[in-house]
Amino acid sequence: MKKIATFGEIMLRLAPEGYNRLFQNDRLVSTFGGGEANVAVSLAGFGLDSKFISKVPYGEIGQAAINSLRYFGVDTTDIVRGGDRLGIYFVEKGASQRPSVCIYDRKNSAIATADKQDFCWQEILSDVGWLHFTGITPALGDNVYDICLDAASVAKSMGVGVSCDLNFRSKLWSREKANKCMSELCRYVDVCIANEEDAYDVFGIKAADTDIVGGKLDGKGYEGVAKQLAEKFDFKMVAITLRSSISASDNDWSAMLYTDGKFYHTKHYHLHIVDRVGGGDSFGAGLIYGIMTGKNPQDMLDFAVASSALKHSIEGDFNRVSVQEVQRLASGDSSGRVKR
Amino acid sequence: MKKIATFGEIMLRLAPEGYNRLFQNDRLVSTFGGGEANVAVSLAGFGLDSKFISKVPYGEIGQAAINSLRYFGVDTTDIVRGGDRLGIYFVEKGASQRPSVCIYDRKNSAIATADKQDFCWQEILSDVGWLHFTGITPALGDNVYDICLDAASVAKSMGVGVSCDLNFRSKLWSREKANKCMSELCRYVDVCIANEEDAYDVFGIKAADTDIVGGKLDGKGYEGVAKQLAEKFDFKMVAITLRSSISASDNDWSAMLYTDGKFYHTKHYHLHIVDRVGGGDSFGAGLIYGIMTGKNPQDMLDFAVASSALKHSIEGDFNRVSVQEVQRLASGDSSGRVKR
Amino acid sequence: MKKIATFGEIMLRLAPEGYNRLFQNDRLVSTFGGGEANVAVSLAGFGLDSKFISKVPYGEIGQAAINSLRYFGVDTTDIVRGGDRLGIYFVEKGASQRPSVCIYDRKNSAIATADKQDFCWQEILSDVGWLHFTGITPALGDNVYDICLDAASVAKSMGVGVSCDLNFRSKLWSREKANKCMSELCRYVDVCIANEEDAYDVFGIKAADTDIVGGKLDGKGYEGVAKQLAEKFDFKMVAITLRSSISASDNDWSAMLYTDGKFYHTKHYHLHIVDRVGGGDSFGAGLIYGIMTGKNPQDMLDFAVASSALKHSIEGDFNRVSVQEVQRLASGDSSGRVKR
Amino acid sequence: MKKIATFGEIMLRLAPEGYNRLFQNDRLVSTFGGGEANVAVSLAGFGLDSKFISKVPYGEIGQAAINSLRYFGVDTTDIVRGGDRLGIYFVEKGASQRPSVCIYDRKNSAIATADKQDFCWQEILSDVGWLHFTGITPALGDNVYDICLDAASVAKSMGVGVSCDLNFRSKLWSREKANKCMSELCRYVDVCIANEEDAYDVFGIKAADTDIVGGKLDGKGYEGVAKQLAEKFDFKMVAITLRSSISASDNDWSAMLYTDGKFYHTKHYHLHIVDRVGGGDSFGAGLIYGIMTGKNPQDMLDFAVASSALKHSIEGDFNRVSVQEVQRLASGDSSGRVKR
Amino acid sequence: MKKIATFGEIMLRLAPEGYNRLFQNDRLVSTFGGGEANVAVSLAGFGLDSKFISKVPYGEIGQAAINSLRYFGVDTTDIVRGGDRLGIYFVEKGASQRPSVCIYDRKNSAIATADKQDFCWQEILSDVGWLHFTGITPALGDNVYDICLDAASVAKSMGVGVSCDLNFRSKLWSREKANKCMSELCRYVDVCIANEEDAYDVFGIKAADTDIVGGKLDGKGYEGVAKQLAEKFDFKMVAITLRSSISASDNDWSAMLYTDGKFYHTKHYHLHIVDRVGGGDSFGAGLIYGIMTGKNPQDMLDFAVASSALKHSIEGDFNRVSVQEVQRLASGDSSGRVKR
Amino acid sequence: MKKIATFGEIMLRLAPEGYNRLFQNDRLVSTFGGGEANVAVSLAGFGLDSKFISKVPYGEIGQAAINSLRYFGVDTTDIVRGGDRLGIYFVEKGASQRPSVCIYDRKNSAIATADKQDFCWQEILSDVGWLHFTGITPALGDNVYDICLDAASVAKSMGVGVSCDLNFRSKLWSREKANKCMSELCRYVDVCIANEEDAYDVFGIKAADTDIVGGKLDGKGYEGVAKQLAEKFDFKMVAITLRSSISASDNDWSAMLYTDGKFYHTKHYHLHIVDRVGGGDSFGAGLIYGIMTGKNPQDMLDFAVASSALKHSIEGDFNRVSVQEVQRLASGDSSGRVKR
Repeated sequence: MKKIATFGEIMLRLAPEGYNRLFQNDRLVSTFGGGEANVAVSLAGFGLDSKFISKVPYGEIGQAAINSLRYFGVDTTDIVRGGDRLGIYFVEKGASQRPSVCIYDRKNSAIATADKQDFCWQEILSDVGWLHFTGITPALGDNVYDICLDAASVAKSMGVGVSCDLNFRSKLWSREKANKCMSELCRYVDVCIANEEDAYDVFGIKAADTDIVGGKLDGKGYEGVAKQLAEKFDFKMVAITLRSSISASDNDWSAMLYTDGKFYHTKHYHLHIVDRVGGGDSFGAGLIYGIMTGKNPQDMLDFAVASSALKHSIEGDFNRVSVQEVQRLASGDSSGRVKR
Repeated sequence: MKKIATFGEIMLRLAPEGYNRLFQNDRLVSTFGGGEANVAVSLAGFGLDSKFISKVPYGEIGQAAINSLRYFGVDTTDIVRGGDRLGIYFVEKGASQRPSVCIYDRKNSAIATADKQDFCWQEILSDVGWLHFTGITPALGDNVYDICLDAASVAKSMGVGVSCDLNFRSKLWSREKANKCMSELCRYVDVCIANEEDAYDVFGIKAADTDIVGGKLDGKGYEGVAKQLAEKFDFKMVAITLRSSISASDNDWSAMLYTDGKFYHTKHYHLHIVDRVGGGDSFGAGLIYGIMTGKNPQDMLDFAVASSALKHSIEGDFNRVSVQEVQRLASGDSSGRVKR
Repeated sequence: MKKIATFGEIMLRLAPEGYNRLFQNDRLVSTFGGGEANVAVSLAGFGLDSKFISKVPYGEIGQAAINSLRYFGVDTTDIVRGGDRLGIYFVEKGASQRPSVCIYDRKNSAIATADKQDFCWQEILSDVGWLHFTGITPALGDNVYDICLDAASVAKSMGVGVSCDLNFRSKLWSREKANKCMSELCRYVDVCIANEEDAYDVFGIKAADTDIVGGKLDGKGYEGVAKQLAEKFDFKMVAITLRSSISASDNDWSAMLYTDGKFYHTKHYHLHIVDRVGGGDSFGAGLIYGIMTGKNPQDMLDFAVASSALKHSIEGDFNRVSVQEVQRLASGDSSGRVKR
Repeated sequence: MKKIATFGEIMLRLAPEGYNRLFQNDRLVSTFGGGEANVAVSLAGFGLDSKFISKVPYGEIGQAAINSLRYFGVDTTDIVRGGDRLGIYFVEKGASQRPSVCIYDRKNSAIATADKQDFCWQEILSDVGWLHFTGITPALGDNVYDICLDAASVAKSMGVGVSCDLNFRSKLWSREKANKCMSELCRYVDVCIANEEDAYDVFGIKAADTDIVGGKLDGKGYEGVAKQLAEKFDFKMVAITLRSSISASDNDWSAMLYTDGKFYHTKHYHLHIVDRVGGGDSFGAGLIYGIMTGKNPQDMLDFAVASSALKHSIEGDFNRVSVQEVQRLASGDSSGRVKR
Repeated sequence: MKKIATFGEIMLRLAPEGYNRLFQNDRLVSTFGGGEANVAVSLAGFGLDSKFISKVPYGEIGQAAINSLRYFGVDTTDIVRGGDRLGIYFVEKGASQRPSVCIYDRKNSAIATADKQDFCWQEILSDVGWLHFTGITPALGDNVYDICLDAASVAKSMGVGVSCDLNFRSKLWSREKANKCMSELCRYVDVCIANEEDAYDVFGIKAADTDIVGGKLDGKGYEGVAKQLAEKFDFKMVAITLRSSISASDNDWSAMLYTDGKFYHTKHYHLHIVDRVGGGDSFGAGLIYGIMTGKNPQDMLDFAVASSALKHSIEGDFNRVSVQEVQRLASGDSSGRVKR
Repeated sequence: MKKIATFGEIMLRLAPEGYNRLFQNDRLVSTFGGGEANVAVSLAGFGLDSKFISKVPYGEIGQAAINSLRYFGVDTTDIVRGGDRLGIYFVEKGASQRPSVCIYDRKNSAIATADKQDFCWQEILSDVGWLHFTGITPALGDNVYDICLDAASVAKSMGVGVSCDLNFRSKLWSREKANKCMSELCRYVDVCIANEEDAYDVFGIKAADTDIVGGKLDGKGYEGVAKQLAEKFDFKMVAITLRSSISASDNDWSAMLYTDGKFYHTKHYHLHIVDRVGGGDSFGAGLIYGIMTGKNPQDMLDFAVASSALKHSIEGDFNRVSVQEVQRLASGDSSGRVKR
């Protein structure tokens, strides 16, 4: 099977221990993460050949980021080295009524200041069968948008499938800018992934009868969203994750898929959250796994949502689960009984 | 705005990590706390000028207690230094059916052995607009009761508003003693704060139709309690927090307020508890914040109960939340969605 | 009162911190545990004289295992020393939909390679009034089955009461082997303890209308199981714990007892799980405590199920609770209100 | 062999991690220790039957102290239970030019407030062959001095050997008081242990040509001290440890012994200090081990000083070393080569 | 006494635990530090009123930096708030032949992008008697150099004494730039502090007969350096610290002072290093303490070098020692004997 | 450049934190290591392509071992999967006079029970230019000796250079067995590495005038050893490391090399030891690096001994240093001055 390439930023992630607030004591848990890196790790964990593309600085910090990917077997040989710094983000885990907090210190990172010439996509994609990126990557700057556009168009021209997770981040760009850029990029995208808010934030497409802050979501209400998205950009597939936030500790989680004119829905998982960062990425990875291994739409959706349900029980950005574990959950055993 | 002074004991707090029982391994989390100190920290965190009054010994332990208050911007310059030791308490976090455990080793502490001459309230209160103490302080000993009485009466005479959280502690004094002393102190009190048990424990005033151990509380049932309290001592305001203990991990939390002949109630928060010590203090601080910033009764009650709801998600005695965070919750967003 | 002896394996238990997956970082929590050791510790914690019987190697690791028992006051003087290694098991705590994982590295342990001559049961049981073992012990090998049979038959002949927790482990032996061996051992057993799966796994006795993986259990449905078990082996008492697994984080927990032709049931505890390993053992210890102190059937069952409900809130294999704490819960106070 | 009893205080020991100053972060390492408890643990670790005598309060803290002794196999059954609190001390590890700091919070502890009637020495000593205490114990108060005197005189009358480590603590009593009390107690003592300062502090006996603060010690210079001590109280044996403090990280360590009119000296160990608290106690335990196992004077002194040299490399009060480890060092292998 | 103001950058400091290399495991020790902040903390710890001046961003990270200063009693009320980010630096502790590593990620920090208008020095210095900065501050950028020049010249004009630690950092600017800027700034400086390399790096003034990398330093050889510096800029006082690096674990440390035409030297301390970052700052703080309290030159130099010797035994940038502790060492007691 | 393959065992390494004794508290530091794995990691860290060959079980533990190698970029694709368990070893760090302790629990590991058919050396070595193993590997069992012999002879026949570190382990085999097996294996070896004890332990070749336990080593005395070794087996190169153990905390470290009839010696490094396990392996890796990059004998020896000197300052088995860091030390800068 050809490799799956993901393109984006990997950052140093700094989080207080347990439910501490930031700097409540003198320890930070330091790991690495970032939307597309998370997808690459997840796919490697599923046994597929994944490859992460980015620009990462020389030195101890950049090397540690790369090593953290190699640990899982992700191919890092096409990562461009150079630039001034690795982006950093601080994550504080929420609980009960207290929301999680993310603070970004990612400006002027190596990838955010990368140049189009840094990446030769013909070469990078020569052993690649699928390319994935999220809306965070083009939001890093016009230069990165250009690189992203280059990647997507070259992929298209080479017959490489392309998936994109809309992933709107209001701290990185405006809705208008996102609309403009993502519209351009989506021309090359085969599979579009979104959460319950993205379609509206980026393209102004709203679900019927939904109250996101109030925490009530209705899968049915998103059928229209998926259909509109698919038709607007001629996507082969649109997948939408649906998070009902009861509190920072409890979420309901499900997803829906639209492909070939049909809608697919999953069961709802009631999640006790350990760490929700990377939840969407683990869904994307599950979906790509399903596509690459030829699952039927319902199975790939069930696999993707089970994959992401498990992610919520795992510390850090990376989803440390095996195909067997996801399959077991997807096939109905959610009792959490001890494996012994 | 004038300062808010709180008077009481600050102790070294020693707790095992996570859900360990005491001494289950060789690590204790060491912080500092105590009812009135918690209120001072909370108010400083809300951006008000707060001042903590106590007696604290010289040496590394006492200094660390003071530093822990300065960290938050609490004014510690009027803390009297001297005495033999800082009180200590051990806290073991409960979970599920296992209750939290508090063990006090506070006898002979600097404040418990303080002398009336240690505190010159005319001076201490010269830049103060509000004075707060709890029922724990006078329970520390007849000498401390005397100091407390001195503080309250001087405050009254200087036109400083006074709030008192009844906070009955059966390990410190008997109901009879509490009744006698608190009755005297309450003559100088403007705002009385209590939890669902205090009014009965201290003054024998019981709510209608309530089963505290069984965990069912009815806000309506406490209207009579508030009214009786207010009338007995001519309080301007009586606020009662209502905790329904489903388990050590899950509580329902709400509050009611009686002022100017009217009753105010809040929504119920379903809390997943991280650390419930200091929950009442964070309510008191929220209420005082509301009073000092001129909120209307419903708003100040909503702010106070949201403030304390958030406290339950935070490790340690101190409530590490901002006005913005409380306001966001008070105005209805309890979904705990990530802030990014 | 005579001592209670338990016979089995004690292992080094290695677990990642918090909800980490195994080897997610570079720290493992190292404690010791094992079914019968857990029972001995629990009983010592209840103030009874307990004695643990096993074979443990010389050297730092074996000694630390023994010390961990002495810490609780368990009599370790009859533990045989020798053999090559102490068994090890790795435990990863589950959460939400992710189940806990146990990995055993216990082959060739001192007890698994022990010889019948290592144990002189006449001497070991000379100061013993009750003997307890679980189905794990005979599953360690034919030699250990022989030792177990020796222990049970000598106990019977000396008038020592015998309890056995069926505790089927599919990784250690087949159902056929278990059926054959346990049938032989049960001839000497007075009190049989089982969970909702054991009776079927070992003896093929199935409850009516039950779906274990689906997580719905009906105490009534197990009355037939208990009765059949009791009649098949002439047990004086059969106790069955009933775990409804809603998720790895939430279980419902109850138990039923059959003795003297009567059925007894308990309330259901809704558990927020801290650590469920040793849950069954803590039930067994509670039951033996009830037997040894002469409680009536309902009271001993209530005590046993309260004891095990509390265990689920405690890290590690060992149940670190006092009789007072169990009694408080058994008598109905499950609100988890702070003890202060 | 009969048991060795030690009588004194066991305290909760709280120390910051590594070389942190007290309260530099929010973690304290919590263990238990105290001069005579340290000796009991050391002797149990050497395989002898030791018994610790003290008064320890009921509750979690006292029980954990007792458990920490049982862990090592120390007999704790004669510890009297009761009193208000367990003494606490804070230890901050020094390094380089920064000295270690000990802060005591031991007033009003159970043993410090114990009553003579609490201890029946005829019973306690009935299975005992040797009694050990230090000068700290009588310094806890007149009541404890009385108990100590009772213990020593009963021991003498029962033919139990008695050793005493002078261990002068200026924070507990004056030199005059110490002189008076220790003179009385020493009438019952067979073996006297002291460090380079004690003889002068307690009895005004000074070594020739010695500069303790300057860090230069001369074993020869202490021959006169030992002889004077022995003659003054008719001791059978006087042992003196000699610490040359180069810095908080580096000490030279040796000892001398006077018995039967002869002087014995040891080599000097150059110590890289991990934790020096309990260094003297580990020497005492080594000496008692030598006496109880019938070593000749040079061998027992070499064993004692090797035992205490090893202690300086071990965290906490307790000396966690085996007879084999001490013997290996005492017989000359101090190269620290890996044992594999 | 008037306040001592220090002006510079405070950064988030991230360091692996113990002797781990960066990212060797998933924990970083997070504290705050920076040359001038370290001096302010040290002075506050000595009981003087110190005030830290900088620009620090809004938000959790900036606030935590400020809180970490308030903890020690440093006045933070004149810190300007705003800007994009707080500078970060990573520190890896060296050992033996492996040097410590510092990695800076401080570009675009709030202070590095501050504007001259942000600081009104007339106001800031109105309650100030002494101003201190280091060569790091003007090296942050031309804008910060301008602010620094403004500060120094205003101080001069207001009669505020000025000290400057040359502190050359080759990663921040070139020797030529440093020479030019520092020459200008030094016109306003009364007291110049340097280490064994600074005078040469910044002004090209070289000591006689010295081999810094080889680790041999000769105080006498620096007399000429001090004299040349003093004469070039008309400094009232020049102090030079002298570090002989034997290894990352062992340094010899001393200092010399030139004032009023006379040279003063100190003893050499042989340091076992716990954390050497901030060593120079702790010397500067000690010197300023000596100046402000009117010590004579030899005493202030002895105090300063003892202060910095102690710093090397303390984790983190901040020097957590009291005047008493420094005095004890300065007056000759370097044996490191336990204080108890 | 062709790859360097190393063949041996990788184990789970469990060590207490800091200077704790094993099981002193409830935390173990879990990493992975083993002689030949250490060499592979070191070489990958130097930027060469290294490949580790072994047999590792399926499951979480084996996978984590492999991931820990991938982290550093070691090629793990030729590791055979299967077998029952991963070997485990416990390491306790010594200090001062207390030696480090290694406890092996490696019996029945996957590699120790591997079959000759598991490894096809023609394929494994097809992209390999150098093969390295140590004397530990053939000592694991006759089967592993056979595999080793197969590997070495195939390498020889394919023109792959072979190095062997004698590494005698008395716990694994006798001197006689080692002599016989290593003599056979050495027929295929080009470069022989040994420490100051190996040549005597394995081949009975003794250095002149040496006292290993006493800690005094003389490089000159080993010239005869190297020459005899080289002549006996026709080695192209013999390298001997020389460790003088002053204590567990302090060692002197140097090495000598014999090749082409000439002797080469290095300077002595005085090491403050952080972790000495893997010291020899880091020397071997340094030597192979020198060979593969064509250094002259003196330079490769200097590089190798500098590489291993640095290793002693690093926690864990793996040497986490870069070529630049080794080169800096090898070229004379051992002052440990901060890199900033």
